[in-house]
Amino acid sequence: MGLPQAATTNAPPYQATSTPCTANKSATSLITINASALIHNYQLLRSKVGENCEVAAVVKANAYGLGLKFVAPILERAGCEFFYVANLDEAIELRRITNKKVAVLAGCHTACGGNQVSDFIHYNLIPVLNSVDQVKNWPINQPAIWHFDTGMNRLGIEIDHAPELLLTHKKSPNPNILYCMTHFTSSEELNDSSLDQITLFDRYIPRALPHSLCNSSAIFRDPSWHRQQVRAGMALYGLNPTPWAKNPMYDVVRLSAQILQLKTAKAGETAGYNCTYNFKKDTQLAIVGYGYADGFHRKGSNLSNLYWDGVACPVRGRVSMDLIIVEMTSALFNVAGSHHNAVPRPPQVGDYLDIIIGSDSIDQLACDWKTNNYEILTSLSRRSERYIVD
Amino acid sequence: MGLPQAATTNAPPYQATSTPCTANKSATSLITINASALIHNYQLLRSKVGENCEVAAVVKANAYGLGLKFVAPILERAGCEFFYVANLDEAIELRRITNKKVAVLAGCHTACGGNQVSDFIHYNLIPVLNSVDQVKNWPINQPAIWHFDTGMNRLGIEIDHAPELLLTHKKSPNPNILYCMTHFTSSEELNDSSLDQITLFDRYIPRALPHSLCNSSAIFRDPSWHRQQVRAGMALYGLNPTPWAKNPMYDVVRLSAQILQLKTAKAGETAGYNCTYNFKKDTQLAIVGYGYADGFHRKGSNLSNLYWDGVACPVRGRVSMDLIIVEMTSALFNVAGSHHNAVPRPPQVGDYLDIIIGSDSIDQLACDWKTNNYEILTSLSRRSERYIVD
Repeated sequence: MGLPQAATTNAPPYQATSTPCTANKSATSLITINASALIHNYQLLRSKVGENCEVAAVVKANAYGLGLKFVAPILERAGCEFFYVANLDEAIELRRITNKKVAVLAGCHTACGGNQVSDFIHYNLIPVLNSVDQVKNWPINQPAIWHFDTGMNRLGIEIDHAPELLLTHKKSPNPNILYCMTHFTSSEELNDSSLDQITLFDRYIPRALPHSLCNSSAIFRDPSWHRQQVRAGMALYGLNPTPWAKNPMYDVVRLSAQILQLKTAKAGETAGYNCTYNFKKDTQLAIVGYGYADGFHRKGSNLSNLYWDGVACPVRGRVSMDLIIVEMTSALFNVAGSHHNAVPRPPQVGDYLDIIIGSDSIDQLACDWKTNNYEILTSLSRRSERYIVD
Repeated sequence: MGLPQAATTNAPPYQATSTPCTANKSATSLITINASALIHNYQLLRSKVGENCEVAAVVKANAYGLGLKFVAPILERAGCEFFYVANLDEAIELRRITNKKVAVLAGCHTACGGNQVSDFIHYNLIPVLNSVDQVKNWPINQPAIWHFDTGMNRLGIEIDHAPELLLTHKKSPNPNILYCMTHFTSSEELNDSSLDQITLFDRYIPRALPHSLCNSSAIFRDPSWHRQQVRAGMALYGLNPTPWAKNPMYDVVRLSAQILQLKTAKAGETAGYNCTYNFKKDTQLAIVGYGYADGFHRKGSNLSNLYWDGVACPVRGRVSMDLIIVEMTSALFNVAGSHHNAVPRPPQVGDYLDIIIGSDSIDQLACDWKTNNYEILTSLSRRSERYIVD
């Protein structure tokens, strides 16, 4: 039934799921970021790679939807010295929050829309240089990362251009090349092509230069891949980097949305737009202040669940822009039948139903919406109130 | 081939699709809002309903993703005097932009998280009261809208509670009930149940009270439904309110994303994560700075198109968080073969590919991603630079 076991078995204990009233008077949804869990996750990765390898945190896309301004300071507290973002805009936003190293995956552009070099230097940012042209246009006395493409066919310098670039470097080593990096296509699959990518990389890039190869999953594959830096994203936020095994990470995110109204649909009535669900009997409903404009895909219509105290309550009818209709029968049955439950009361207007409680619930939404767990996080609403628990 | 005809046939003339370099140095995607088209759309709806009916603008969910702070002032210029938003947060944001009437669809809550009544009065906001309790808790001398549920089973007062509420009103009419409203389930479908909903509404709600019934589609259904106010959303933003006929609205939104790199994949190589696309021959690619974290659903992997000067260029491999790999073969072929084209040059790094150019391209994405055109708009990236053209 998609019960999010991970929330109770795998994480630091959460408060009871039926969040009591909060002081916030206007947001209809809440994203809770568990700071201890985030710190735990960072330090778990640190312990995996050892002291001679840096653990950089990937905080692009508003820290995978969680909220950059909340996440970055916690990671800094955890000991993070190096951050990756997607583009210059995000880097400037992050620079207002931290004075640690900030690298920009999109590279530093000079071709169009003005030359970005002066902004990079002004904000003390590190470009991930993705082409020979970008390398040539970047000042040799400024720190940079050289990104070689070993199979993604996305951003990156074609690996066979490495000898040309490294010629100069061989004569007089440039300490401003902080890392030579590449990116795996499928490191979350055992027996994938990561080893081929590494073999190709190692054929061209000498060990004298620092290497940055691993994303979250690759950290758990082979210690010899760790080299001088790993780049952790999804694992920090509690997603499972080891789909072949139990999730070693703690749950970081909880997402809950407020009940704006409780009502009873009568037998024979329908739910929502285009009447796609028919009630066979009188049915208790909760109308919740969250919708597809908040990142709950319409794909979840008549399919996904929200949770009251861990009990799955199904979405009825179509998800609309700002509202979801939820059938509360199972929750009320659970309340009536409960002898061991710490919160055996029926939900009231103003209470919150959970949408995300732990990585299993994220994986379930990804399954429902036919996407991956990353897209669930990066869709998290900008309308939600975010707060941190320790 | 999903060529967005509407952009050229149905809208005020756009510039050539291959946007030249802009002054913006950091955003990798641009949302252009066509102010003249938005004003045209508002005034078209005004002309449909006549002078005795108010056209309110629904600007919830950041003005359907376009950007509230850009859209609201344009609508005000067009003559709009009345706005609807989803919740109190959005209302407070809008109040900073306009002093026109602002109504809040989620209602005014007193049960939990603090009493909102004082905020509503402080910010001069109008609640859409959705339950008998909300009506009772709202000061009788303050303006309000009473929302009756006639079939959505979403928010709204059960219609059979109307007589009880109207008893007092009959004795001494309350001028602060600005409108009695209801919401249609399926007004974009001819022969739907809208007439049943109106019949039910009219049985309970006297004509002496002002009525607000119509959403965008319903405006085009039957002039007798217009009553004293209509609430226009999707039609303002250029989506087709009349799926049974040609779109009468002008295109308002254009979304373009920057080419961060051009490269040639070799025959036998693959594209992106998990190698889901194989190149049969050497293939010219553009790597574009937009991804699922920007609202381009992963569902579009190996499926949707971007456009170079109106020519569809297919997504290859999986859409990733911040990047999309696009095959440029058709665009280059078009350039080589073009004799009449105003922009017959091949794309360069820094140029923009279009993702949305007109309502047909939005409908095509909705079809690809198995959702509706609303969700395409409300997914629009917060990372995009927005600007207005007249």
